[in-house]
Amino acid sequence: MQVRLEKLSSWLKQESIDAAFLTSTANVFYLSGFLCHPHERLLGLFVFPEAEPLLICPQMEVKQAKNAGWSYEILGYDDTQNPWEMIRDALTSRKIQPNGVRTLAVEKDHLSYRRAELLMSILPGVRFISAEDQMHQLRMIKDSKEIGIMREAARLADYGVEVGFSALKEGVTEMEVVAVIEKELKQKGIQSMAFSTMVLFGEKSGLPHGIPGNRRLQEGDLVLFDLGVVLEGYCSDITRTVAYRSAGEQQREIYETVLQAQLSALDACKPGTPIGELDKTARKLIEKAGYGKYFPHRVGHGLGIEVHEYPSLTSTNTQPLQPGMTFTVEPGIYVEGVGGVRIEDDVMITEEGCEILTNFSKELLIIR
Amino acid sequence: MQVRLEKLSSWLKQESIDAAFLTSTANVFYLSGFLCHPHERLLGLFVFPEAEPLLICPQMEVKQAKNAGWSYEILGYDDTQNPWEMIRDALTSRKIQPNGVRTLAVEKDHLSYRRAELLMSILPGVRFISAEDQMHQLRMIKDSKEIGIMREAARLADYGVEVGFSALKEGVTEMEVVAVIEKELKQKGIQSMAFSTMVLFGEKSGLPHGIPGNRRLQEGDLVLFDLGVVLEGYCSDITRTVAYRSAGEQQREIYETVLQAQLSALDACKPGTPIGELDKTARKLIEKAGYGKYFPHRVGHGLGIEVHEYPSLTSTNTQPLQPGMTFTVEPGIYVEGVGGVRIEDDVMITEEGCEILTNFSKELLIIR
Repeated sequence: MQVRLEKLSSWLKQESIDAAFLTSTANVFYLSGFLCHPHERLLGLFVFPEAEPLLICPQMEVKQAKNAGWSYEILGYDDTQNPWEMIRDALTSRKIQPNGVRTLAVEKDHLSYRRAELLMSILPGVRFISAEDQMHQLRMIKDSKEIGIMREAARLADYGVEVGFSALKEGVTEMEVVAVIEKELKQKGIQSMAFSTMVLFGEKSGLPHGIPGNRRLQEGDLVLFDLGVVLEGYCSDITRTVAYRSAGEQQREIYETVLQAQLSALDACKPGTPIGELDKTARKLIEKAGYGKYFPHRVGHGLGIEVHEYPSLTSTNTQPLQPGMTFTVEPGIYVEGVGGVRIEDDVMITEEGCEILTNFSKELLIIR
Repeated sequence: MQVRLEKLSSWLKQESIDAAFLTSTANVFYLSGFLCHPHERLLGLFVFPEAEPLLICPQMEVKQAKNAGWSYEILGYDDTQNPWEMIRDALTSRKIQPNGVRTLAVEKDHLSYRRAELLMSILPGVRFISAEDQMHQLRMIKDSKEIGIMREAARLADYGVEVGFSALKEGVTEMEVVAVIEKELKQKGIQSMAFSTMVLFGEKSGLPHGIPGNRRLQEGDLVLFDLGVVLEGYCSDITRTVAYRSAGEQQREIYETVLQAQLSALDACKPGTPIGELDKTARKLIEKAGYGKYFPHRVGHGLGIEVHEYPSLTSTNTQPLQPGMTFTVEPGIYVEGVGGVRIEDDVMITEEGCEILTNFSKELLIIR
């Protein structure tokens, strides 16, 4: 954490920014090691170019912040106290206010307009700079500890798919399969899934963001699994599609098209490739097969503390891939009435190419 | 939904506000019936004093918005399109812009500073008004359809506690009990829990926001369950504490103190009572028993589409209780090393008093 705080302080110094105030669970966790979901209450971390950082959190979380290893000052407030006044007083007693914070780096995508107004009231005349780009830059390149956790998180996602496959039997419902997967992962010590586990049968697999329900499994269904876990604050995210008992000609064609598109995008995963190439590569193959309009989303997204983070794998992203970047590659084709196929892996860029973190087989399986 | 949209339009007309732009999943769901978690993408709903409303969502969600019953205009955008330009063009083609939106009601607590800047760029000179108070007012008083759903959600929370109690046996871990509860609820068709299910044993029950882990159950442990489900977009939230095999004297004293505090707060639940009285009533009893400093949080929170919504049950809230309000009442005492007790019910204010939606027994159970 110390290295991360120092990198942020250096950036503030270099850009002549008076302070950073970070309020998202993800960035506070990244910089402090303290993972806190404060609901509507304020969680915030001030980082300065020179002075020591300052954490603000609900009083009942103070102990957990210390347990997580935070050794700098903490302002804990209870529900009858005004945290903004406490911040103003703390900055004043450190002689940072009045007038010391004229430019403040904040997460413009996360900071609410209300909190921006409150900050303006305690820091009169303050001007906001975006902290996001810098935080994205820092977080986008994972260190070896993060990679180790993400490898393990991906292994657990593989296991979730394996459990899901074993739970497929005539007449089972989507929600029953979800329940079995999540129970097994919980018993492995997983505290939360990275997002609502998706198990979709037949025509429902044709909805890119369908919701599992009481649809029962029957012969000839495509079955789409999309799931991931949170392990020590880091997410995994895998999608596999199988056929139940039999697969029709069009289902096989769609599957093969998605698989080839995914493999060709993975082939392009190496340092220096412009990120947009991955989407273009996959999309070109899908368009060539005549399914262009059935691939309505980008080919992937960055993955880490958040299940959707930087880089974004849109076709227009010209940034080059760099070692330590972690993201998903997940083309899909969704045909109404027929069903859908998506194949998704988690990928880390290495010095030479890439390491695919998820390992579950991608051959078209026909579950008997 | 039509009635809700009309109420909001009337308010805009009455306050001479040119439009409202709502972006939270909860408020968009409340007004449109469309439940959408767009991750970092934009979801937004424009409501006008006179003109028809306008929904903005990712292209891949358009079909689900229509399926949810939305019959007004939808702007669907894909990942290569700029939704803000589409909004500007749509407002221009409706002759609402330029100059038609000088005051805009937004969710200041939800709208990010970035999006506020983007709105200012497409609506030059726009001034933001808070839409939150009005939305909280509308949502705080539930209609009979909402109450019906919340009753059922509370019943499922009761069932979750029942399942959890049955899963207690020597040596079981907290996470194993969580897994059993969630699996059973999923099999009842519950798509997501309202928050991370909490099952805490022994000294871990003494942490108001502890996290379940691999702690094993042993004789003499207090066991704290805090869980809730989301049913058709509405949350429930229940806490019960039991003792495993035996309960010591201090554990019994803490339990009785919390129970009496909770019952006295429930007694005060009727129209006209200032909301702060509920916290004060419970706190007074707990302080009298000498545990004041071990009750570090407010006595409860509003409950509905969000697990924490209005009203907030802090001691300083002077607003009177009104029929149709739904909230939790959940005093707790947490003693380091000994353990904690919290007892929480979901309550709805009626014309005469209140209806307690959660029904699970509150006598101190010693699980054998």
